[in-house]
This record gives sequence, structure tokens and C-alpha cells, in this order.
Amino acid sequence: MSEYTLHCFAESGNAYKAALMLELTGQDWQPVFVDFFNGQTREQAWRDEVNEQGEVPVLEHAGQTLTQSALILDYLAQRTGQFAARNEDEKREIWRWMLFDNHKFTSYYAALRFLFCLKNTGETDVTHFLRERAKAAYSVVDAHLEKTPFMVGGRVTIADLSLAGYVYMPEDTGIELENYPHIQAWKARIKALPGWKHPYELMPKALPVSR
Amino acid sequence: MSEYTLHCFAESGNAYKAALMLELTGQDWQPVFVDFFNGQTREQAWRDEVNEQGEVPVLEHAGQTLTQSALILDYLAQRTGQFAARNEDEKREIWRWMLFDNHKFTSYYAALRFLFCLKNTGETDVTHFLRERAKAAYSVVDAHLEKTPFMVGGRVTIADLSLAGYVYMPEDTGIELENYPHIQAWKARIKALPGWKHPYELMPKALPVSR
Repeated sequence: MSEYTLHCFAESGNAYKAALMLELTGQDWQPVFVDFFNGQTREQAWRDEVNEQGEVPVLEHAGQTLTQSALILDYLAQRTGQFAARNEDEKREIWRWMLFDNHKFTSYYAALRFLFCLKNTGETDVTHFLRERAKAAYSVVDAHLEKTPFMVGGRVTIADLSLAGYVYMPEDTGIELENYPHIQAWKARIKALPGWKHPYELMPKALPVSR
Repeated sequence: MSEYTLHCFAESGNAYKAALMLELTGQDWQPVFVDFFNGQTREQAWRDEVNEQGEVPVLEHAGQTLTQSALILDYLAQRTGQFAARNEDEKREIWRWMLFDNHKFTSYYAALRFLFCLKNTGETDVTHFLRERAKAAYSVVDAHLEKTPFMVGGRVTIADLSLAGYVYMPEDTGIELENYPHIQAWKARIKALPGWKHPYELMPKALPVSR
């Protein structure tokens, strides 16, 4: 039995945020597969027993159950001392970007990818809407990364690991990534970290999508 | 000059979260109108000087500039000691719901209201998509509020003030609110707090929409 248990599946970039943090900080952890695409997170029993919010990731550790990727990242940063804020100002700045990530950067991209790439809806008014919102969020982050190599404090923090949730997913969402050169360079810097792994290597796959 | 300055406009439920907190805790504060609908938050100068994320609310206090409603709520709870967590477990639970709010509960509802009620797009595939997502988030919160009068700890906290951002907005988004009776009862409980005010009373209006 590992010290940490992460309820997850490989296609979830939100789960990847937690999985990558566990891996990069060298924790003893194991994934528990959640069968999202067959409706497991919508089942009443799963909601009652695992997460009433109906979402992954869920982290179990030392008798505690934690949900919400940003909160899990904050918990692990506090416990391990790695990728953590050095002071109150940095802490606020990290949370500011993790909130922007949850509200816009990850959120619109993940919804777009789900419809366009995993459910294969083709281009619709909805995918167009989501892509425009995702591009607006990408522009904000790209403008920030023009000024600094990582989101906060000039080094990798959990703010970067949060925003990085979906950026290595292989599917083509129709966003022209070359329009965001500072995000592309930042992705390469994170990928170069010792121990970095792709989401599809870290967690069990739910769908037979090729990399 | 008031102690707190809040960059906001009345139609923004995200700004309302901060405004209501300032009001309920009895702070000396003043609103600064942001002309969102004429593109002020998209102007480069506003992004450079006020908020690179291009969003309201922005709170100025004691030489500091804070953005992201959840972070502003947390800051004010720490400073005033009101609507705050009593311990680490409550703090995590509050953040868990504020994150759910930013990602889903406020997020989909606000986008739906913006298109359907303020931009008057009429019913489209996009408003249908957003409404279904908003309804799913409403169901999660309604199920939680079936078990407890407020989101965390049996009393009002900043988790409630976060989730309450858009729930008093007068526009009809096409969601049948009577399907969420526990949310309706919770709204009435918050509205009964001494000093409660409607968003359109607390902040300057941007649009000539009637209440």
C-alpha cells in the first residue's frame, strides 16, 4: 500500500496536475483508475463514498481525502516543501494563477478537448465558443510568460504545475500553438525537469486514443 | 479616500462576492467603475496598470493590489476574522468549494447569463451547452445544501459568499430554480443577514438593465 492514493485516469489533465506533483517530488504513490467515460463519477455511490463534487482528482493520504487539483497541489507543496511559495506575496500570486487556471485556462481548453477530440463532435458553435475563450486565456498566460520563465518567482512552483495540466495532451484542439511562443518555451522548460513524465505514462488510460 | 477600493461593475457577480464581503464586514470601501461592456478590461493600458488577467474584481488596500474573488475573500476573512475558517480542515473545505465555484458553479452560470441575458443571443447551441453544465453544478451544490444550512461548518463563511456571486442576479437564464430547493432556501438565509444588499445596490451599473 503506497503512502498516497490518487483517484484518476490518464486523459484527465486535472488529475495530471496532482500526479506530476507526486512524481516530481518523489512520493510513494499509486493511481486508482476511475472509469470516467462510463459514468463512474456520476454514480451516486461514487459521489457518496469518494467525491460529492463528482470530479477527479481525489487524493487519499493519512486518513484524509482531498479534492480539487489546486488544493491538492497546495497540500503537497506544504508537506514536501517543494514547488512551494517562499512568502505570503508569492503564495497569493500562486493562488491567483491557480484560480485563473481553474476558471479559464484549463477549464475552457479541457471542455474544448473533451468535445472536439474525445467525443469527436466535429466543429460546432460550442467548440468554436470554447476555443475562442481558451485562446483568450492562452493570450493572458503567454503575455505573462514573455516576462518571466515560470509563472511566479522565477522558478517552478505549483502554479506552473496547475497550468500545465492539459498542455502536453496530444490531441489537436484546433488552437494554433505556435501563436503562443512563450507558452511553448515554458512547456519545454517544465518537460526538462528531472523525473517529468507525460500524463499517459503516469496514469491508467480510459480510452484507446493513440499518443 | 476609503480604506478599500474595489474595481467593479454591478453586473459582475464575481465583483459582488468581494463587494458583499466588504459590506457585510462593515469595511470602509468605495467602488471604482470599470466599463467592461465597452472593452476597458481588454485595453492594454488597463491590463498593464490594473490587472494583466483582464478581469474584475480588483481590490486595492494598503498599497497592495489583489485580484481573483476567492483570494480577495480569503484576504478579507484573514484581516477581519469574519466568515473565516476556524481550523485547517475548514479552510480546506472552504477552498474546495471556492474552487468548485470558480471552475463550474459561477463559471458556467455567468457565461450563460452573459450570452443569454446581457448579449441577448437568444437560445443557441452554446447557451444550451452552458445551461446543462450550470445545471449539473447546481445539482452538486443543492445536494450538499440538503445536508447543511451553509456550505461549511454550519455557519456563513466566504465559501457561501463566493457561491452567492450570481444567485441574486435578476435575469432569467432559463434554469428552473425551483428544481434546486435547497439552494433557494440557502439564498434566503444569506439574504437575511444584517447589512445584505443586492449587487445592483452595491456597485455602479454598466448596462441600463432593469431589476
